[in-house]
Amino acid sequence: MSVITIVGAGMMGSAMSVPAADNGHEVRLVGTPLDGEIIKRLKEDGYHITLKRNLPKSVTYYSVDELDRALDGVELVIGGVSSFGVEWFGSEVLQKIPRGVPVLSITKGLYAEEDGTLVAFPDYLTRFEGGREHSFNAVGGPCISFEIADRIHTFVAFCGHDMNVLKTLKEMLSTEYYHINLTTDVMGLETAVAMKNAYALGVSLAIGMGEKERGEGCAEKYNPQAALFAQSVREMKRLLKLAGGNSDEILYGAGDLYVTIYGGRTRRLGILLGRGLTFPAAKEQLSGVTLESVAVTKAVIGAVMEQEKRGKAKLSDYPLLSHIYDMLIEKTTVNIPWKDFEEEK
Amino acid sequence: MSVITIVGAGMMGSAMSVPAADNGHEVRLVGTPLDGEIIKRLKEDGYHITLKRNLPKSVTYYSVDELDRALDGVELVIGGVSSFGVEWFGSEVLQKIPRGVPVLSITKGLYAEEDGTLVAFPDYLTRFEGGREHSFNAVGGPCISFEIADRIHTFVAFCGHDMNVLKTLKEMLSTEYYHINLTTDVMGLETAVAMKNAYALGVSLAIGMGEKERGEGCAEKYNPQAALFAQSVREMKRLLKLAGGNSDEILYGAGDLYVTIYGGRTRRLGILLGRGLTFPAAKEQLSGVTLESVAVTKAVIGAVMEQEKRGKAKLSDYPLLSHIYDMLIEKTTVNIPWKDFEEEK
Repeated sequence: MSVITIVGAGMMGSAMSVPAADNGHEVRLVGTPLDGEIIKRLKEDGYHITLKRNLPKSVTYYSVDELDRALDGVELVIGGVSSFGVEWFGSEVLQKIPRGVPVLSITKGLYAEEDGTLVAFPDYLTRFEGGREHSFNAVGGPCISFEIADRIHTFVAFCGHDMNVLKTLKEMLSTEYYHINLTTDVMGLETAVAMKNAYALGVSLAIGMGEKERGEGCAEKYNPQAALFAQSVREMKRLLKLAGGNSDEILYGAGDLYVTIYGGRTRRLGILLGRGLTFPAAKEQLSGVTLESVAVTKAVIGAVMEQEKRGKAKLSDYPLLSHIYDMLIEKTTVNIPWKDFEEEK
Repeated sequence: MSVITIVGAGMMGSAMSVPAADNGHEVRLVGTPLDGEIIKRLKEDGYHITLKRNLPKSVTYYSVDELDRALDGVELVIGGVSSFGVEWFGSEVLQKIPRGVPVLSITKGLYAEEDGTLVAFPDYLTRFEGGREHSFNAVGGPCISFEIADRIHTFVAFCGHDMNVLKTLKEMLSTEYYHINLTTDVMGLETAVAMKNAYALGVSLAIGMGEKERGEGCAEKYNPQAALFAQSVREMKRLLKLAGGNSDEILYGAGDLYVTIYGGRTRRLGILLGRGLTFPAAKEQLSGVTLESVAVTKAVIGAVMEQEKRGKAKLSDYPLLSHIYDMLIEKTTVNIPWKDFEEEK
């Protein structure tokens, strides 16, 4: 039995308490400054208001100002913040974690250097004060938080630079429903993880486009979705390579993409854009949701353009992502560049 | 304008008449000995009884005994038979096709040599009498026949050994909704095409397994489907390599798999097996449908075992396909080997 502290009480971070508690660990869940309401209710009766489930009875709860106490004697920290919380995690949390304690992060995202080099968040975290004193690892692979919380069969991958640490993490968290692959290909897995939201949006466009023609709620057509799915896999494979990952990891990308297409916000945004709405109009209908796909699309297209200047990439290799960029950043309406997808080789 | 003769009036062969006719070609649709009822009705009023749609007015119809006339002056033959019709096509049709006329085949399947070498059907066809006198090409990629017939955006790939022939075929059949990639990687594309049914069955198991736990018609859970999807992509990628294809073509496999999961018979079989039925019991409920996945699973697992003897493959690299084999051939009930999917690398 170990002490595991999860920092960030959003849906995915909180759901991780389920396999952790099922392994008999002492699990402490700490809210970020944005999780006040969630922690307040959890302290009352263990009910998570956004995950809409009771967490395991053995889990204990901490507000952000109780962080020190929650980290006392900790043996594994699970970083449960979204990509918008990474700066906070790096600057406020990291230095409080006892030296040598490994971190397992659920944060997805890619950070682009000025020269277009892409950096995965586990590596980005090493740059903060105290960052050199931990082994950073990350979770990827297809996983909807609700389903983990319900103990539905789920297959994820943990990545990190030290296989021995990874094996320890797997031993700590693996259950009969939570299956874990291990890989040292951090960029490979993290690129897939980061891009899935953007491309899931791309595939979902087809649903909205169909609704525009045949009426909202019409039966879905699958050929256009599958065409966009195949194009997404193609572009993700190129990005994996560009980012320095092993393109074998594309299988995580494909699985992630599959699950994300059914996973909520991104799908809804894709459908609205597919119907012909502009991004601002669509965002209004989705009032207030945070959209990680916007940030990662901007970062990655920026990186590709930067690398194109250096002769290392071609923007024309990413026609679907470029179109997603146009919709999200330039506010154009949908117009799938089908003919740009065609290849002869 | 060219004369295009489609041999085989099943759903996919017949649906190909739509982009062909939209390009202004003279399209002749010929039934096989099994398509008597279909051709009879088509001759009456142009309604296709299994595709449940009217075909374009310009298409003309021929029964099997009118084959010679249908091939008179033909410039492209589309082979529209299922894998069960390949022997008939090879032995009865091929020698009647005028020398030098290219063939584009929609047949999917892999043929296994005694030593475990896998052969794609376009290459298999060259072995029949007259087979050396044609350029054989094939269609792959995600495509539901109903949607092609409805002129819904569809992205396929044509493969063959001669890029110039492929370019001509693309020019003949491409429309604003029918998008075509070209590749000379015949084994790469055809392996993906052949395996999609088997693996779509594998992914659909998760739906039936969920229904067994939570009741028929319950809301689908996506983590297990995505886990099986990722494992399918992983195994298909290995098979592509084993078959001598370029694993870049995995994107067709992923797209094909995506569309096939929603595509009908295979999904229904997977759901029934997932609920815990044996294959004979499931087959009874699906009365009379032909199941290409059984044949291809048997051929491919046989080929892998044969190559394992020669030290060129490992059956343990294909735990999902092996389990599908056990269910279909050995008549065992579902029991996903989750732990065999785990990897550390």
